[in-house]
Amino acid sequence: MNTILECEIKPLNQQALISAREKIDHLAKPLGSLGKLEDMAIQMAGIFGEIPFTLGWKRVVVFASDNGVWNEGISPVPQSVTLKQAVNMTRGLTGVCAMARYAGCEVKVVDMGINAHVKCPEMIDRKLAMGTRNIAQGPAMSREQAYQALMTGFELAKQAKAQGVRVLAAGEMGICNTTTSAAVLSALTGMPATDTVGKGAGLTEEQFQKKRQVVERALEINQPDPGDPIGVLQKVGGFDIGGMAGLYIGSAAAGLPVVVDGFIAMVAAALAVRIRPEVKNYLFASHVSNEKAFMAAAQAVGVKPYLDMGMRLGEGSACPLAMMMMEAALRMAHDMLSFDEADIDINDYIDIRGE
Amino acid sequence: MNTILECEIKPLNQQALISAREKIDHLAKPLGSLGKLEDMAIQMAGIFGEIPFTLGWKRVVVFASDNGVWNEGISPVPQSVTLKQAVNMTRGLTGVCAMARYAGCEVKVVDMGINAHVKCPEMIDRKLAMGTRNIAQGPAMSREQAYQALMTGFELAKQAKAQGVRVLAAGEMGICNTTTSAAVLSALTGMPATDTVGKGAGLTEEQFQKKRQVVERALEINQPDPGDPIGVLQKVGGFDIGGMAGLYIGSAAAGLPVVVDGFIAMVAAALAVRIRPEVKNYLFASHVSNEKAFMAAAQAVGVKPYLDMGMRLGEGSACPLAMMMMEAALRMAHDMLSFDEADIDINDYIDIRGE
Repeated sequence: MNTILECEIKPLNQQALISAREKIDHLAKPLGSLGKLEDMAIQMAGIFGEIPFTLGWKRVVVFASDNGVWNEGISPVPQSVTLKQAVNMTRGLTGVCAMARYAGCEVKVVDMGINAHVKCPEMIDRKLAMGTRNIAQGPAMSREQAYQALMTGFELAKQAKAQGVRVLAAGEMGICNTTTSAAVLSALTGMPATDTVGKGAGLTEEQFQKKRQVVERALEINQPDPGDPIGVLQKVGGFDIGGMAGLYIGSAAAGLPVVVDGFIAMVAAALAVRIRPEVKNYLFASHVSNEKAFMAAAQAVGVKPYLDMGMRLGEGSACPLAMMMMEAALRMAHDMLSFDEADIDINDYIDIRGE
Repeated sequence: MNTILECEIKPLNQQALISAREKIDHLAKPLGSLGKLEDMAIQMAGIFGEIPFTLGWKRVVVFASDNGVWNEGISPVPQSVTLKQAVNMTRGLTGVCAMARYAGCEVKVVDMGINAHVKCPEMIDRKLAMGTRNIAQGPAMSREQAYQALMTGFELAKQAKAQGVRVLAAGEMGICNTTTSAAVLSALTGMPATDTVGKGAGLTEEQFQKKRQVVERALEINQPDPGDPIGVLQKVGGFDIGGMAGLYIGSAAAGLPVVVDGFIAMVAAALAVRIRPEVKNYLFASHVSNEKAFMAAAQAVGVKPYLDMGMRLGEGSACPLAMMMMEAALRMAHDMLSFDEADIDINDYIDIRGE
């Protein structure tokens, strides 16, 4: 059986959605006045069968991988930075780690295809190859590898569920993965590279033009078919994107909410919902990335992010912040009074001698 | 001495701003890639003299008061709801309380002018009158009362500082306070009532038109002078708006950061910076309110909010969420590696036998 394509993904619990909406509409506040907090609480009710009191165990899984397209000279950053930052993540010392520690969230780092024989026991070893091949010259990976990348994320979600994790998120670390993401987004949506290629981690205009040309060449050579999303991943994607998309599908299959943050993550989410549209019900978009094509990717997924902090670090760095918002939404639903409860007898609080 | 007008408000510590910017620019991430988190950490450095490790004691002060303009019949909500919800706040059961509890933030409720002889020991009694007078018929309050409203907020900030509180926010509870806020914003900016009056807590089109006419009448009758902001408060404001503006000025004087959330709060902040422009350095805008004229008020203050959750509950309900973002910003600044520290020797993490 092809797990990715055939696993059961339950629709949201309709009765729970209705009950949650009803409960929230009866809270002592103007109707709808808690905006996204209300939507989030209701969506979680649909996932868990009722509005949970808290999320509890939170985890960000960071997929680290190298991309063969780096050899085109499109990034000023050496490839070794992928390994360095992945190691630093296992030590709790990068952006996503700082945010995660504040939010009481765990970070797991997975080697999906770092271009080195990594010796780091804290890193989960799921290496598929020493990086992908160069998409400007041919497909990034074999179809079998694309499937394995998806399955890796899928299994990590399943494992997390078994361990008791209650909300997941995907992060990434990989030099040149905004390039592969732009190529995947173009392949899925038909948008030209001019619209999907951004300036990534601080490119000059010249580097930017080169990056755009590389994406155009990758699309030209590989001719990815938008009707075959796994083929898109295989031809112009990356192991990290595959792992993230797999984590989204796996979270949905495991019945867990999963946070999508950042451009690469949103492209991976677009891929995931192309493979399995039911995944969308389990996604929680967090942050408006400053990366140019982010909103186009969010549109392809059909979600609307709500944090606008001008961030573009990647790593899934805003995921822990988004998880806090989700927990705040649960507190709203449980701790606020209903109109009936709020309608106290004011005579108990008025000094009649004073009147 | 006129405390509000003459108290010392220190400029931000320039050396601390420069050092903080330098420290953050050397963190292992693309320059500026943590957006607002960077700005917030730097602003806090300017306030505290260095980037603090955490904020610690957090407090939202909710100013509850009634507005005489309620007698114009512009709100479907009875005035007694001000008292009821103020009491419910002291019991920790409203929207801002739920958010505050999640964020580890305290809520204090102040009776500035609830239209009842309140008997509620948990409420701080600073009642100036049984509500303001009807702005559609004359000034809301005396000049002395306007000054007292400001001083009340100012003193509560000073007291909080003395107690060890490290970040403040102002909330509000008062039926018809979007009406007085619209009038104050029109008076300060010259914007017509059509642009400053919103639909508040769910008005019909008819109620909305009536509300607009009432604001127009209040401006016509009172002729507030934009060059005299305390006069604007006196003529078309409310005790809650005065208390909030005073808290902002007091926070700045006490050297504490203060969060501004919601339409009424933003109008009070606009008033505060008109009285004392130096206050702006201490303000942290949090949330984009769904109330129509919110962005105009934010522009009048000169700040840009970063949360966009479609909220319009009031009460200062998103302040605790904003305080969590501020603390996350501090974690980013302290826990992330610098480029030098991140540049580890990868040979320590490569298995040479594997090559």
